[in-house]
Amino acid sequence: MLGLTVEKNAVPAVRQLCEQLRRLIGSGELPAGMKLPSTRQLAAGLGIARNTVVDVYEQLIAEGFLESRVGSGTYVAEGADFLRQVEAGKKAATDSPAVSRTVPPAAAPPAGPAAGAPEPVIDFTGGFPDLSLFPRRTWGNHLRNAVLDAPNDLLGYGDAFGDPVLRNELAAYLFRAKGLRVRPETIAVVSGSSEGFLLIAHALADRFGTVVVEDPTVEFGRDIFAACGYRLKPVDVDGQGLRADRMERLESGELALLTPSHQFPTGSILSIQRRHRLVGLAEASGSYLIEDDYDSEFRFRGSPVPPLHALAPERVIHVGTFSKTLSPGLRLGFVVVPPSLADRFRKTKDALNLLTPNVEQRALAAMLAGGDFERHLYRMVKVYRHKRAVLKEALEEHFHGAVDICGDEAGLHLLARFRADISRIRWEDALSFGVRIQCADDYRLAGGGTRRDLVFGYGHLDAAAIREGVARLAAFLREAAG
Amino acid sequence: MLGLTVEKNAVPAVRQLCEQLRRLIGSGELPAGMKLPSTRQLAAGLGIARNTVVDVYEQLIAEGFLESRVGSGTYVAEGADFLRQVEAGKKAATDSPAVSRTVPPAAAPPAGPAAGAPEPVIDFTGGFPDLSLFPRRTWGNHLRNAVLDAPNDLLGYGDAFGDPVLRNELAAYLFRAKGLRVRPETIAVVSGSSEGFLLIAHALADRFGTVVVEDPTVEFGRDIFAACGYRLKPVDVDGQGLRADRMERLESGELALLTPSHQFPTGSILSIQRRHRLVGLAEASGSYLIEDDYDSEFRFRGSPVPPLHALAPERVIHVGTFSKTLSPGLRLGFVVVPPSLADRFRKTKDALNLLTPNVEQRALAAMLAGGDFERHLYRMVKVYRHKRAVLKEALEEHFHGAVDICGDEAGLHLLARFRADISRIRWEDALSFGVRIQCADDYRLAGGGTRRDLVFGYGHLDAAAIREGVARLAAFLREAAG
Repeated sequence: MLGLTVEKNAVPAVRQLCEQLRRLIGSGELPAGMKLPSTRQLAAGLGIARNTVVDVYEQLIAEGFLESRVGSGTYVAEGADFLRQVEAGKKAATDSPAVSRTVPPAAAPPAGPAAGAPEPVIDFTGGFPDLSLFPRRTWGNHLRNAVLDAPNDLLGYGDAFGDPVLRNELAAYLFRAKGLRVRPETIAVVSGSSEGFLLIAHALADRFGTVVVEDPTVEFGRDIFAACGYRLKPVDVDGQGLRADRMERLESGELALLTPSHQFPTGSILSIQRRHRLVGLAEASGSYLIEDDYDSEFRFRGSPVPPLHALAPERVIHVGTFSKTLSPGLRLGFVVVPPSLADRFRKTKDALNLLTPNVEQRALAAMLAGGDFERHLYRMVKVYRHKRAVLKEALEEHFHGAVDICGDEAGLHLLARFRADISRIRWEDALSFGVRIQCADDYRLAGGGTRRDLVFGYGHLDAAAIREGVARLAAFLREAAG
Repeated sequence: MLGLTVEKNAVPAVRQLCEQLRRLIGSGELPAGMKLPSTRQLAAGLGIARNTVVDVYEQLIAEGFLESRVGSGTYVAEGADFLRQVEAGKKAATDSPAVSRTVPPAAAPPAGPAAGAPEPVIDFTGGFPDLSLFPRRTWGNHLRNAVLDAPNDLLGYGDAFGDPVLRNELAAYLFRAKGLRVRPETIAVVSGSSEGFLLIAHALADRFGTVVVEDPTVEFGRDIFAACGYRLKPVDVDGQGLRADRMERLESGELALLTPSHQFPTGSILSIQRRHRLVGLAEASGSYLIEDDYDSEFRFRGSPVPPLHALAPERVIHVGTFSKTLSPGLRLGFVVVPPSLADRFRKTKDALNLLTPNVEQRALAAMLAGGDFERHLYRMVKVYRHKRAVLKEALEEHFHGAVDICGDEAGLHLLARFRADISRIRWEDALSFGVRIQCADDYRLAGGGTRRDLVFGYGHLDAAAIREGVARLAAFLREAAG
């Protein structure tokens, strides 16, 4: 049916079908407006569970390939035939049969418990991982073994772009996990994504001076560009990510910093139409898109969304981190650099002597090679899936009918959108009820907003704290709304 | 005699005497031009070994407090009464009974073995430590224990200025090892001194745009300031360090980057007269002196020279590193910040999110607290003392009467100065004899120079390689000189 097949192999059926459908829609073989079989029909035709097809459709709707018309069915969306557009266009942006998807990235704002609250404050700020489940023994052993087994060279300065052993493992991992095909020579190891942004800011400073940023967005990346002298140019975000549809162009000297896979804080996925548009704008002005892929590893529905980098490897600088998957304290991340920029980045890294401790790099390589990292990841996906369910249940219990949940397909935070106008509520006062929470609009540069969206970071909280936190918030709201 | 005493306690007699004499000279109690007792007289008077007094005199001559007049004796030098000058001056630059000394700092240029040489190339470039003696087991265990024992917080982002436990240990160590009295709040942990320079460059960018640099000097620091947009202003170096005696002023907007304790590559110690002058210039213009203290821990004669920071804590930013004492691959260093700049540095570190892995920080704290670090240091001082002796012996054997050795009191490199004009020798051609070496003048920004001084980094080479390397160099020189 539709030429789709599901093979019995290691790749999950959802992922197989998503990839095939993306290619069929991307190439125009399934044209815009075409109605798809119902989930029941397709499931029967392929001999698979209906839930699998539901997951596939939901994922592709989230990515902008499909759209659902109420009471009618599921259709191929307009403007999703990116592969045909690319071929029709002047120059192909990709050198591989790039499959368009989206992956959730974002970084978490710094936070700490508030002082003076009645009980230990429950803090929903940011999107932090659960550090109590950090694989201490595994990591400790890998570190120790790396120190004991390391050749003497590894104790020296080493390769400025990072330990070649780790870069090989990262290339393999990026293909396994995100479907990215990149050469190890184009991967630069950095001490956390922050250092990645610092590296980019310095490497491109002679050609760029402005960064288009999502508004609202996480502070980390944009603050670093600002500290390096770049001007910030905020552009609004909606349910499909950055409002690229309203952008006429990228000016010369303008970069764009994006969280395409899981926008922080709104949780939206940058749609395929806007991805395509942004790549086109970057090509037209010789600019680069910086993809902050901060938490795409945690995906709870469907298969991973492909990084923007896959769509245009020469125009997208992909920044990844192990802060969410392992721990922010490790300071381990990487930057996938467009091949034509690799020399420039290497020179900048050399000049600034930005190096990451080799022993930690080798320990991470061992975790990736031996499967320890992905075992930990799978475990944590289960843990966070449970926490997310607890949070949604608690929100349902206390705010039934008053809020809609969004941006919960991935990552370590979700958004609760109040249906009523609650703009006069001062959420910072919730501290006196022992709970800390922020509005999505608190992350805005431009100010304003409806202040209707609350950001719930839940990764670091246990189930009891999540429930208690939501109960406290409900108590606060009852009093504040008087 | 002279009011000097030697007490039987843990502090070595050389260090006790040096400190007392510095204070007596600094305060003017021993006035300029005064003749000191002979080493024999003083040793007899104090009931100590004559060699001890010889060491004391040599050290204080190197630091500029004393001067030796051939055939006449040892005298108090002009301009060394810095404490009296400070008190007489408008404002006291120090808040503690600051003792003026000097400590060797510098960083090593990146290097790697050359390709295409007849045998494995013996590389005298830079001042690298002997990584084969890195305390792997100790460090590996401390790392592993830090991971296992760390509170969950330590796996998070942590304090931007560094782990408080490590900063306490560093404050104690700085007092033990360098006589620095600093509060932990003014110590910022950095990922190697390079990141320290990056931090300084960013933190002061709104007020400063030029850096006075020693010429010649190590590339690391100056390259980072250049990459951050600072203009470099080279000033010559002689046997007493930077030619501060020829500087009229520090302009507003000018910083100075110095290796006062052990200039790289010349090995000279910045004299007390010039230290005092530079501090005065910095005070007059509201500028700061950046003290790159890269290898002062390795001192082979006399006691450690006090850092410039001790002389003027509000005018000197002291940068230290564990790259030489442990390994460059660890990326561990620190910056002692003038108290009035601490807030500014903290904000910059926050904005750039410059963080050092917490597990490594805690492991280093454990090494300092338990004495493992200093045990390693003492061991390595013995090792490098032996290598230095082997190198001097080999130079004596092959270049008898043709070279003078200087800058060998400390650090991991020394200078061999040819008496004859050898400016036409192309030292890079020595590669074809299987040896790599650089002239001190290769480290010059301004170019020129007599090219008479060869820099021998010996820390990373074993005794056999040192002997063989010098032999190859002699063979090369015989051929090159025809």
